[in-house]
Amino acid sequence: MLTLYFTAHTCALASHIALEAAGADFRLHRVDFSKNEQRSAEYLQVNSKARVPALVTERGILTETPAILAFIAQTYPLAQLAPVDDAFEFGRVQAFNSYLCSTVHVAHAHRIRGYRWVDDEAAIEAMKRKVPQSVGACFELIENEMLQGPWVMGERYTICDMYLFTLAQWLEIDGVDVSRLPRVLDHRQRMSAVPAVVRAIAAELSTA
Amino acid sequence: MLTLYFTAHTCALASHIALEAAGADFRLHRVDFSKNEQRSAEYLQVNSKARVPALVTERGILTETPAILAFIAQTYPLAQLAPVDDAFEFGRVQAFNSYLCSTVHVAHAHRIRGYRWVDDEAAIEAMKRKVPQSVGACFELIENEMLQGPWVMGERYTICDMYLFTLAQWLEIDGVDVSRLPRVLDHRQRMSAVPAVVRAIAAELSTA
Repeated sequence: MLTLYFTAHTCALASHIALEAAGADFRLHRVDFSKNEQRSAEYLQVNSKARVPALVTERGILTETPAILAFIAQTYPLAQLAPVDDAFEFGRVQAFNSYLCSTVHVAHAHRIRGYRWVDDEAAIEAMKRKVPQSVGACFELIENEMLQGPWVMGERYTICDMYLFTLAQWLEIDGVDVSRLPRVLDHRQRMSAVPAVVRAIAAELSTA
Repeated sequence: MLTLYFTAHTCALASHIALEAAGADFRLHRVDFSKNEQRSAEYLQVNSKARVPALVTERGILTETPAILAFIAQTYPLAQLAPVDDAFEFGRVQAFNSYLCSTVHVAHAHRIRGYRWVDDEAAIEAMKRKVPQSVGACFELIENEMLQGPWVMGERYTICDMYLFTLAQWLEIDGVDVSRLPRVLDHRQRMSAVPAVVRAIAAELSTA
């Protein structure tokens, strides 16, 4: 059985939704950031990067959202979560997810994890001030260039939708002007009604 | 034929090495950052994110290093650049590459691209000051936890090695204390003698 180490309100939700959508046999293990459990000796054995998600499999542990999402799609091909048999189409899926992890999530992280990149308080505040603009610019690119509609990859519902939905949870707390993102908001609303999404969110909020 | 849009001294080198190692039929197209060509109307048609690399294929364009590397490995299976038929092992490769793009490269980018995340000059200088520490911490994790040896994934030479080698080019200009990274330095030295690496670097420096 798989075990997903997660924290509510983090990007681990994307992997969680994918496991639900795949019909995978898995259990959840909550990492309590409020108690700094991600830096506990126990958790560092799971993920030495002190972050979530981490997926424990019978063969070992996988980390990093794009890697876990692709692994789930490849391991449960019947769920058709990505075009795993077409290197080019799979590459497009991966390019989108890579943009989310390396640019969009990173822009967001400057609001609350600025200490990763600077030490002084004034610079941390300067970072916070730019988040509405930097995250907003990422989502405008998604809105205008990447989100094909109705799903990210067009007619096909994929792991990209799960990941985009997860990061789009943070638009308002990041201070982004969402009035410029009608297609992203429509996507988020449709995703919020998908059964696997409903189940994943409910489980995260009720798992001790 | 494939076309790789690249700029010398950027992460595009990883994809370039992979194309060489795969024996792919490709040509290079240089994007001149000194002339801001990455923001030209012509290049924005190739990659609306205004970055390199971009790989133009007969079916469309792929961006983002982890996606391009996986695409090359899957498209040229005889070159054995990644364990593409084993979802778990492939997931480990992808997890490593995802860490490089979302954490290591991002830490590095705070030295010269701080304007992405802050507006004021003092904060940009504060970012630069922390780069030796933040990039150094990433590479110490690679040194001590991730780099199995002799290659990143152990006995098997993969796309991870090409990507790690590429980012390890910047250690000294980022001010990292490389004396703490003997295994990373040994890996970099061995990689620099690999024929595909030698060819890729020579081509980048000679392509107008």
